[in-house]
Amino acid sequence: MIELRSDTFTLPTPDMIKAMASAPLGDDVYGEDPTVRALEELAARTVGKEAACLTPSGTMANLAALMAHAPRGSKVLVGAESDIHLYEAGGASVCGGLVYEAVPNQSDGRMLLDDLAKGFPDDADDPQFARPALICVENTHNRCGGRVLPSSHLREVRDFADARGVAVHMDGARLFNAAVASATPPAEVARHADSVQFCLSKGLGAPIGSVVAGTAGFIDEVRRIRKMLGGGMRQAGVIAAAGIVALETHDRLADDHANAAHLAEGLAGLSGIEVDPAAVETNIVMFRVPEERLTRQAFIAAAAARGLALAELGHGRIRAVTHAGVGREDIDRALAVVRDVLTS
Amino acid sequence: MIELRSDTFTLPTPDMIKAMASAPLGDDVYGEDPTVRALEELAARTVGKEAACLTPSGTMANLAALMAHAPRGSKVLVGAESDIHLYEAGGASVCGGLVYEAVPNQSDGRMLLDDLAKGFPDDADDPQFARPALICVENTHNRCGGRVLPSSHLREVRDFADARGVAVHMDGARLFNAAVASATPPAEVARHADSVQFCLSKGLGAPIGSVVAGTAGFIDEVRRIRKMLGGGMRQAGVIAAAGIVALETHDRLADDHANAAHLAEGLAGLSGIEVDPAAVETNIVMFRVPEERLTRQAFIAAAAARGLALAELGHGRIRAVTHAGVGREDIDRALAVVRDVLTS
Amino acid sequence: MIELRSDTFTLPTPDMIKAMASAPLGDDVYGEDPTVRALEELAARTVGKEAACLTPSGTMANLAALMAHAPRGSKVLVGAESDIHLYEAGGASVCGGLVYEAVPNQSDGRMLLDDLAKGFPDDADDPQFARPALICVENTHNRCGGRVLPSSHLREVRDFADARGVAVHMDGARLFNAAVASATPPAEVARHADSVQFCLSKGLGAPIGSVVAGTAGFIDEVRRIRKMLGGGMRQAGVIAAAGIVALETHDRLADDHANAAHLAEGLAGLSGIEVDPAAVETNIVMFRVPEERLTRQAFIAAAAARGLALAELGHGRIRAVTHAGVGREDIDRALAVVRDVLTS
Amino acid sequence: MIELRSDTFTLPTPDMIKAMASAPLGDDVYGEDPTVRALEELAARTVGKEAACLTPSGTMANLAALMAHAPRGSKVLVGAESDIHLYEAGGASVCGGLVYEAVPNQSDGRMLLDDLAKGFPDDADDPQFARPALICVENTHNRCGGRVLPSSHLREVRDFADARGVAVHMDGARLFNAAVASATPPAEVARHADSVQFCLSKGLGAPIGSVVAGTAGFIDEVRRIRKMLGGGMRQAGVIAAAGIVALETHDRLADDHANAAHLAEGLAGLSGIEVDPAAVETNIVMFRVPEERLTRQAFIAAAAARGLALAELGHGRIRAVTHAGVGREDIDRALAVVRDVLTS
Repeated sequence: MIELRSDTFTLPTPDMIKAMASAPLGDDVYGEDPTVRALEELAARTVGKEAACLTPSGTMANLAALMAHAPRGSKVLVGAESDIHLYEAGGASVCGGLVYEAVPNQSDGRMLLDDLAKGFPDDADDPQFARPALICVENTHNRCGGRVLPSSHLREVRDFADARGVAVHMDGARLFNAAVASATPPAEVARHADSVQFCLSKGLGAPIGSVVAGTAGFIDEVRRIRKMLGGGMRQAGVIAAAGIVALETHDRLADDHANAAHLAEGLAGLSGIEVDPAAVETNIVMFRVPEERLTRQAFIAAAAARGLALAELGHGRIRAVTHAGVGREDIDRALAVVRDVLTS
Repeated sequence: MIELRSDTFTLPTPDMIKAMASAPLGDDVYGEDPTVRALEELAARTVGKEAACLTPSGTMANLAALMAHAPRGSKVLVGAESDIHLYEAGGASVCGGLVYEAVPNQSDGRMLLDDLAKGFPDDADDPQFARPALICVENTHNRCGGRVLPSSHLREVRDFADARGVAVHMDGARLFNAAVASATPPAEVARHADSVQFCLSKGLGAPIGSVVAGTAGFIDEVRRIRKMLGGGMRQAGVIAAAGIVALETHDRLADDHANAAHLAEGLAGLSGIEVDPAAVETNIVMFRVPEERLTRQAFIAAAAARGLALAELGHGRIRAVTHAGVGREDIDRALAVVRDVLTS
Repeated sequence: MIELRSDTFTLPTPDMIKAMASAPLGDDVYGEDPTVRALEELAARTVGKEAACLTPSGTMANLAALMAHAPRGSKVLVGAESDIHLYEAGGASVCGGLVYEAVPNQSDGRMLLDDLAKGFPDDADDPQFARPALICVENTHNRCGGRVLPSSHLREVRDFADARGVAVHMDGARLFNAAVASATPPAEVARHADSVQFCLSKGLGAPIGSVVAGTAGFIDEVRRIRKMLGGGMRQAGVIAAAGIVALETHDRLADDHANAAHLAEGLAGLSGIEVDPAAVETNIVMFRVPEERLTRQAFIAAAAARGLALAELGHGRIRAVTHAGVGREDIDRALAVVRDVLTS
Repeated sequence: MIELRSDTFTLPTPDMIKAMASAPLGDDVYGEDPTVRALEELAARTVGKEAACLTPSGTMANLAALMAHAPRGSKVLVGAESDIHLYEAGGASVCGGLVYEAVPNQSDGRMLLDDLAKGFPDDADDPQFARPALICVENTHNRCGGRVLPSSHLREVRDFADARGVAVHMDGARLFNAAVASATPPAEVARHADSVQFCLSKGLGAPIGSVVAGTAGFIDEVRRIRKMLGGGMRQAGVIAAAGIVALETHDRLADDHANAAHLAEGLAGLSGIEVDPAAVETNIVMFRVPEERLTRQAFIAAAAARGLALAELGHGRIRAVTHAGVGREDIDRALAVVRDVLTS
C-alpha cells in the first residue's frame, strides 16, 4: 500500500528505534527524565523560545497552549479552515471555557487583518461580548494545501496582535515543513508567535508526541495544564529519544516536498484532475477528480483497491501527503494508479 | 428624548405597575409563587408547549435552553448574525462546555440547509469532531432587521433536524412581533421548535424577564440549570405580574410595526439614506447614512444632540426600534431630526 | 399559616410596593437605571466597599464573585456546612472550572486555620494540585444556626489569607443580621473580606435580589460575569426600589432576633425538645425533637397540619426562622402548636 | 540510589525494550495500530470487561472515565484520601463541569455506606443540589498504605450504587497488586465496578500508559473524550508493546509485596519507627519517624544523602514503595540506611 492519507502514518526509523531502546530514562512527572529534558531543550533552542514541553499529541499541545494564554470566558480567533477549529473536538470550549471565533482563511492560509478586526468588539468593556485573548495561525496550513504563511504576513499579524493586546499562537504541526520549504530557520518561522507547537509524529517521523514552546513562564503554565489533562507521562524518554532523532534529521523533509511537487505535476498531466502545482509548497497535494464521471468516494475506493491510500479533505477535495514512508518510485506508482482509475 | 435604540427601553405601563403592586406572591424557589405559576401556565399555553419557566433575562433563557438540550462537548449551530452568537458573552462555552458553530444567515435571517449540513461531520463517530446537538433559529431576527422567518423555512429546518437527530431551539426574543406581523398564533410560530424563549422585557413592555417553554421534562431540566446559574428568584411574582399583562396585551405590537413602516418610508424619502421599506416587517428599521458626508458615529451623535436616540448595529448600519414608548408623532419628529442632521 | 421555614418567604411591605411603583426606571443593561444605581451606591457605602452590583439571587452573587476571584482550575475553600458548598448546585465547578474544597465548620461556623492550611499543598508548584485562590466565609452562618462569626476570627482569616496570597469572600446572605446582632456597622462586619454578598430577599424583606460588593475592578468583572450568566435585567429599578427600602429599614431585624430568642426559650421549656437558647444569636433557631416518639418528618407534618411551617436542616435538626412576616404572637402560637404536637 | 519514592520509577525491562523495538505499528488515531489493539484486547479480557482504551496516563484514564460516566453538573463521590481527589488537579471540575464530593476513607481505604449516603440529597429533584452520578473506589488504596479493598466491601458498594442508580468506577492504578495480594483474578477484583483503570507504568513496569476498561459503549465515549483531551497518540504501539509484556508478567508483583513486608518487619524492629507490618498488604510501606528527634524532612534528606530515596505522603507519614527496580538486598541496605540515620 502506498500510504498518502497523512504524514502521521510515518513509522520510526531504525535510528529512532535504536535511540528509544538505549535512552537514559527517569520519571518525567518528577521532572527526572534526562532524555525528555534534552528534547525540550533542543526543541526550545531550535524554535527560538525560552522553554518547551513535550505532550502526547498536537491536540494537547494546542489545547494546553490555548488554555495557558486565554482566561476562562475569553475568545480565541482561529482560522475557519484551521485544524484547531475543525479537528480538535472543541476542547478549548469544553476544558477551557473558551469561545472559538472562526475567521475566514484565504486560499493560502492567511487571515485578513480586516477579518481579524471583526472579532474585536467596538466596545471592549461591553459585557455582552466575550473578550478576544489570542490569535492562532497555522503554518504550514493543512486545509489550505500545506501552504507556508509568508513571513511578512506573520509580522503583520504580530503587529496587529500587539496593537490589540492579544497573544499569537502558531499551530506549527508542520512547522519544519514551513522552515525547509522557505529555507528559513525554524526559529525565524516561529519568531512572530508568542508560542508555537510542532508535531514530532507527522513529517518528522517520530511515533508519538508534540512539543509546545514559549516563554519560561508560559511553559510552566502549560506543564501545569498538561498534568491536569493527563499528559504527564512517566518514562517519556522513550518517546523523546525518537523526537530528538526526528529534530536532528528534519532536513529530509525536502525530499517529501520534491515528491509532492512531482506528484502534483504528474496529476496535472492527467485529464480530468484539477490540481494547481504552483500551490504545492510543501508535502501536501490537494486535487479534485472529475466527479461527473466518478464521485470522489468512488475514486478513493478504487485507488485503495489498487494499493493507493488517499483521503478526503473537505470542499470536494482529495488530499495526498508525502512523507518518509513514500519514495519517488511510490509517487510514480501512485500516478499510474490514478491514471488507471480514471481510465477504467 | 425619542428612544429608538431598543425596545428594551420600554417602561412598565400603569396596568403593569398596578398588577405588580397587587399580585399574590410566594417564594418561587420553593415553587410557591402563584403569580409566577400563572404566568408560566399562560406562557406555555400561548406558545403551545407543555411547560414554561420564567428567567431574569433572555440571555439566561437561551443559556439554560442550550445547556438543557446539548450535552457537554457537543456543538450548537447558531446563525452567524444571531444574538445568541454575538451578544451573549459565549456563555454556552463557559458554562456548558459547548462549541458554537456559526452558520451564515441570509439577509432575511434564514440559514440555508446546505450551510447547516456543513456543520455535520461526514463521520459522526470520528472523535476529532464535536457532535452537533442543536440548531438555534432566531425569530424575528434582530440583526437581519426584525425579519420574520417564513413558516415554510421553519418546517424545513424541523425536518432537517429530525433527519439528523438534533433538536431545534427558537430564540424568540421577539416571538410576538413575528406572530403579530404574520397574523399567526404564537403557538404556530413556535410549532416547529422543540423549545422557544421569548422576552417579556422587549416589545411586550414588561420591566424584567424572559420565558422559556418546551416539554415538561425539558423545562424540569431548565429549572435545574436556572437555579445553578442563579436565576432562581424569590417573590418573582412581582415580575411575573407585569409579564401577564404584557402577554395579554401583545396585540399592541401592531402599532409598533406600523410606526416602523412609517419611519422606513419616511427615511426612504430622505436623500442619502439607504433603507429598504419592503424589508421592514416588524418593529426594527435598519438604515445607512451617507458616510461620505458624515460617519454614522457623527450621525448618531448629531441625532442624539437633537433628542433622537439611535444605535449602531454592525455592518455600517444604524438601527431604530419602535416600541410602546414611541408614538406616531415621535416618528414624525424623528424623521424631522434625521432630515435636520442630513442638511446641517 | 405561621411561616418559619425561611426568611426568604418575607413579602414586600407597603413601603416597598409603593417604592417599586414609583421608582424612576431605565435599562440597566445599558447602565441607565437610576434606581439600580442608587441601590448599588447605597449598598457599597453601607458595606464599606468601593462598588456594588445587583444580581437576581444570592446564588448568582456568590457564583459571580467566585468566578471573578478565582481563575479556571483553581480551588475555593468553603465551609463543609456552608450554603455555597451545599445548596448552590456546584455552579462554580460547572461554570467556573473551579474545585470546591470543603473545610470543616466548627459548631459556631468558624473554620480552624489548621483546617484551612490543609487545603494548601506543601509544594504550590506541583501541578498535580489545584492552586487555592479564595477562602469563603459565611456570616451569619445558616447551617450553624445563624451564628455570627466573631470579628477576631474574621481578622485571623484575613491575616491567614494575606500570608497565603489568596482572597476572602464573605457570603453575607444574612450580613445585616450579623451587624444588628453584634451591634456592629455592616461595613465593619465586612471589613476583613475582599468581597461580600448580601441578600435583599431574606430578612431584609425585599422580594428579589442580592448585592455583591468589592473593589471597583472586581465589580467590573462581576458585572461582566453577571451578563454571561444571564443576570443582566432591564428595568431592574423595580427590584432595586424595594431593596433601597429594605436597606434603610434593616434595623428591624432586631425584632426577628428577639422573636427567635423568645422561640428558643419557649422550646427549651418543652419536654423532649433539644435546643440551646444560648446559641441563638440571630433569627435562626435549630432544634431536635424526641425522635424515639415521633420522627422529625412526622413532627414537621403534624406542625404543618396545625398551621406551623418548619423545615429540616440536616443532621436531624429542624430549623425555624423568624422574619418580618412573623410577630411575637405568632411565636407564642408556634410554641402552642409544638406543645400540642408533642403531647398528642 | 535505592529508589523507594514510587513504583512509577520502574524502568522498562530488556524484554519490554525488545518488544517496543519490534512491535508492528500503525496510526492509532485511525485505529490502525495492531499492537495497541492487541493490548486493549488483552487488557479487556484480563480485567473482565468488554472493551479497553489506552491512555497516556492514569490521570487521563480517570478523567475520561469520570467524564464518560457523569454528565455536566453532576457530582462524583470520591474518597477524601483518594488520588483522584488529591493528585489530579481537579480536572473533572475544569474539563467536565463535575463536582467532587469528598467522602471519608477508613484507614483501610473503604468508604462507609453511611458516609456515601450523605452525598445523596434527600430530595433528588431539588435543583439546589448537584445530582450524584458516580462513586469512585481506589484499589489498592495508595494513601491508605496500599491496602486491598475487601471483595465484600466492593460488593456492598455495588449494591448501594445500584439502589441509588449511580455507576462505580475503580481507580485501579495498582489493580494488579490487589489481584496478586489477594490471589484473586484481576477480573474478579474489577467485577463490581462498571469501569476500571490501571496503570502500566507503576508496578507493572512499562514506561508509559494506563488502560481504562468497561462496556463497549462506555469505551467508545472514553475514546472520544481521550481525543478531545489530547490523548490520541499515533504509533502508540511502541508504548503498548511494553504494556503487553507488563501485563503478561504481572505475577512478579508478588516479589514486591514480599520485599515490602520484609521492609516493614525490619522497620518495626528499629527503635522509634512507627510502622504496622500487618497493614502492609502490597508494595507500599507507610511509617513515621521519631519527630521529636529529627523531623521527617530531615530524616528523608539524611536518607537521601546515604543513597535511599523516600517520600512524604501526608499526615506526617513517610512512604516507601517496592518495585521491580528494588531487590531483597536493596531492602536490607535500605534498613541499614534507616538504622544509620536514626543513630547518627
